[in-house]
Amino acid sequence: MQLPIVLAFDGKTPLQRQVFEAIRRLVLAGMIPPGHGLPGSRQLAITLGISRNTAVLAYQRLESEGYLTPRRGLSPVVNVNLPEHSLGIASTSWPARTRRVRAAAAERSPAPGLVDFKIGQPTAREFPLRTWRRIVGRQLLRGYRRYLRYGDVAGDPGLRAAVAQWLGPARGIAASAEDIVIVSGLPQALALIARVLRKPGWTAAVEDPCYGRMVDVLSDFDATIAPIPVDSNGMRVHRLDQRPADLVAVSPSHQFPLGYTLSLERRLWLLQWAAGTGAYVFEDDYDSDFRHEGAPLTALKGLDQAGRVIYFGTFSKSFGPGLRLAYISVPAALRTGIVDAKSRMDRGSSWLEQTAVCEFIESGHYASHLRRIRRHYVECRNALRTGLKERFGDIDVSGINGGMHLAWHLDRRHPTAPRLAAAAAPLGAKVYCIGQGHGRCLDDKKREARTLLLGYSSVSPRDYARGLDALAAAAARLAPRHRPAGARPTRA
Amino acid sequence: MQLPIVLAFDGKTPLQRQVFEAIRRLVLAGMIPPGHGLPGSRQLAITLGISRNTAVLAYQRLESEGYLTPRRGLSPVVNVNLPEHSLGIASTSWPARTRRVRAAAAERSPAPGLVDFKIGQPTAREFPLRTWRRIVGRQLLRGYRRYLRYGDVAGDPGLRAAVAQWLGPARGIAASAEDIVIVSGLPQALALIARVLRKPGWTAAVEDPCYGRMVDVLSDFDATIAPIPVDSNGMRVHRLDQRPADLVAVSPSHQFPLGYTLSLERRLWLLQWAAGTGAYVFEDDYDSDFRHEGAPLTALKGLDQAGRVIYFGTFSKSFGPGLRLAYISVPAALRTGIVDAKSRMDRGSSWLEQTAVCEFIESGHYASHLRRIRRHYVECRNALRTGLKERFGDIDVSGINGGMHLAWHLDRRHPTAPRLAAAAAPLGAKVYCIGQGHGRCLDDKKREARTLLLGYSSVSPRDYARGLDALAAAAARLAPRHRPAGARPTRA
Repeated sequence: MQLPIVLAFDGKTPLQRQVFEAIRRLVLAGMIPPGHGLPGSRQLAITLGISRNTAVLAYQRLESEGYLTPRRGLSPVVNVNLPEHSLGIASTSWPARTRRVRAAAAERSPAPGLVDFKIGQPTAREFPLRTWRRIVGRQLLRGYRRYLRYGDVAGDPGLRAAVAQWLGPARGIAASAEDIVIVSGLPQALALIARVLRKPGWTAAVEDPCYGRMVDVLSDFDATIAPIPVDSNGMRVHRLDQRPADLVAVSPSHQFPLGYTLSLERRLWLLQWAAGTGAYVFEDDYDSDFRHEGAPLTALKGLDQAGRVIYFGTFSKSFGPGLRLAYISVPAALRTGIVDAKSRMDRGSSWLEQTAVCEFIESGHYASHLRRIRRHYVECRNALRTGLKERFGDIDVSGINGGMHLAWHLDRRHPTAPRLAAAAAPLGAKVYCIGQGHGRCLDDKKREARTLLLGYSSVSPRDYARGLDALAAAAARLAPRHRPAGARPTRA
Repeated sequence: MQLPIVLAFDGKTPLQRQVFEAIRRLVLAGMIPPGHGLPGSRQLAITLGISRNTAVLAYQRLESEGYLTPRRGLSPVVNVNLPEHSLGIASTSWPARTRRVRAAAAERSPAPGLVDFKIGQPTAREFPLRTWRRIVGRQLLRGYRRYLRYGDVAGDPGLRAAVAQWLGPARGIAASAEDIVIVSGLPQALALIARVLRKPGWTAAVEDPCYGRMVDVLSDFDATIAPIPVDSNGMRVHRLDQRPADLVAVSPSHQFPLGYTLSLERRLWLLQWAAGTGAYVFEDDYDSDFRHEGAPLTALKGLDQAGRVIYFGTFSKSFGPGLRLAYISVPAALRTGIVDAKSRMDRGSSWLEQTAVCEFIESGHYASHLRRIRRHYVECRNALRTGLKERFGDIDVSGINGGMHLAWHLDRRHPTAPRLAAAAAPLGAKVYCIGQGHGRCLDDKKREARTLLLGYSSVSPRDYARGLDALAAAAARLAPRHRPAGARPTRA
């Protein structure tokens, strides 16, 4: 077969990237259907007038990012399980993983005895140390002169371009490098936005419950906080009709901390409302890299026609919070103001890790890394879900379709969350109330008592039984007459 | 000789550091006078009951930091030119430098033809690439798990301790690790302080002229700006009697941008005034690492008995602004507020470069690095001073005793600074008005016309003649009838 690809030999864009992009577009547009074979790299090279090596590298990246499936001794075929269609679990047809360093220490539990169901804590098991060291060393050698000057306040241009390119297939967002501003994390992102939007008497609507730090940052910039309740379809956005706001902060993919998904109907309503009122929407997409089941809904930003949405994404969950790198995709109208505010708060992040993340993404290692930890998180989530069911029977749990933690809505049979958390800790399980897990209840105070958060991203699968036994023991001690039907006897 | 040293063998502080500290104290207290010999490392080891290796390493660090001078085949002697007495130029008796990578590219001029007298731009020539790469690689291997968690908001504890220890001998400041908060640069430092101090109708006094970004940040937090004029003894602090302020931002070591030193009398007055009124003083010590002549005055913070001074220091000048690491030493009363504000604006800097800088300091490489660039900057400054004198005769220049740039106060014989800068650029010399050089004139507008800033930290010594010839040619074109006596004919 001959692929309809035209390359520009003007030296502006590397040929390898052009080939990669062109084939990716053909695959995504369905012009080469899943399961369909591609020409061999040798033939591709001849047809396109490029070197064999360029063809091989382009195929390797397509394979590493999951668009193609290699076949031993044969040319690759289009993956039957395309990443855009199932951002979640890697199918078993993924290419063999490259060898990587696994830290021996990371295999041990963090503190002997205590199983910590920490919220939003990335796993240490899959850390790509070898790749990362090589990349950092190379960037240092290549770019060390960048220590001697101020970088772009908005962030390293290469990283911004890589993020923009990533957001298209990953989240359905059409962004260019100019739309992206690199920040150190959610507090800085929100502080920049608040700095630009603040005016006397302004109001920011937040989910109730929400990420506690959000309320602090917004209050710092004198916003009146309007708490909007949350149900199983996410933020009850229609309430904004009675409670107008200049900014709405929402976590549509996996509501923090309850894990609900904002329904499509509410997404569209919110966007229409924002377009009508001129309000801005801050879309906190903190852990959307991890979608375990079902296709992810397109990000609000991807549906936003009116330029009302500021999208926030972070490397804190996929790589680690110690990296201090996150990003926002900003509507054109806010761009200058936000970059200007950033130059006054902070002249930008260090160049080294920005360029390293850029290479990590562009080389395809980031996509491979995500696939590995996604698979690991699914295992962990399954172990947690099954273990809870075995011990507590049929319980009300939310947030299991994605992310790194779930919320257990305790019913009358169970003690309150603070009591349960307090009783479980000395028995060997650390579980979290909303307030302890970085969340905050505003008007809806009873959520705090009735919601228990359990993170599964950093617990080793073989520790679940022990941790959940401790939790069950704590529950049994607090409510001995109400052991639910179907629960296993505890070891306590 | 037997040294009066008592070591604690409790494993808390490394023996090598204890020996280093003890000898340093003896040297600084004058108990071992300059030129006086020390016991050989073998004898020292036996006397103190430590390993030979520990003694050798302690001596090496004392030599590398300039307290001792090695003698070939003999035991070291106390340096006759102690760093605390002359923080500036390294004497010729410094130990032989270790081999280091010099980037070939850094030897070239930045843009062919144009000699850029850029303000505050560190030299690329002396960048310690080999050492830095080794340190970063080692820290990465050792500490990569720190990517997986949030670090201390106030900064890496090791780096904070290293900075605190550094500030004692370097700037006469007694600080502990708890007093130090790591920030990304001056904007963030000032934003944190402004966040904590702001109240309705508050006033911040700044030098006029000053670093322009300061005014932006303070205004962001609704401060009324009170400009205080500057003369050759620095900020005219007595004006504060008529113009009270809640915060005074001052650059005592090398006033930005004019380079004056705040006199001791004014330092003491300012501290007394602050203690009396309860105001805070922000001491911007941006380039005090570079003192070329005379003993540096103790930092305001070192004289501050009443806890009114917030000291700001940075690695932007000594290492490079691309590192994005600086620090403040904070009075106890402000500590919690500032760390709290930081947790809301920014959850801290990436751990990797913080730990690398920590090792860079503690291993003595930072001190060696500073000595190398100091020596280089003295050469550059001399070349600039001599070159200016040859071409323009007896001119009024300030700021030559330290720092990385000087200010030329143009008199009536010369055109205005904006005209001169504009005319020099096409002839091949980039020089700066206050406004172009990150400075800002507030009430004192005539400074802008009469002050030309020339940085000498990033110009190669062999480029001075060409750059200054271009400047002289520009001056001659603009005022052809006023060529000063003693000026060389220009090439233009």
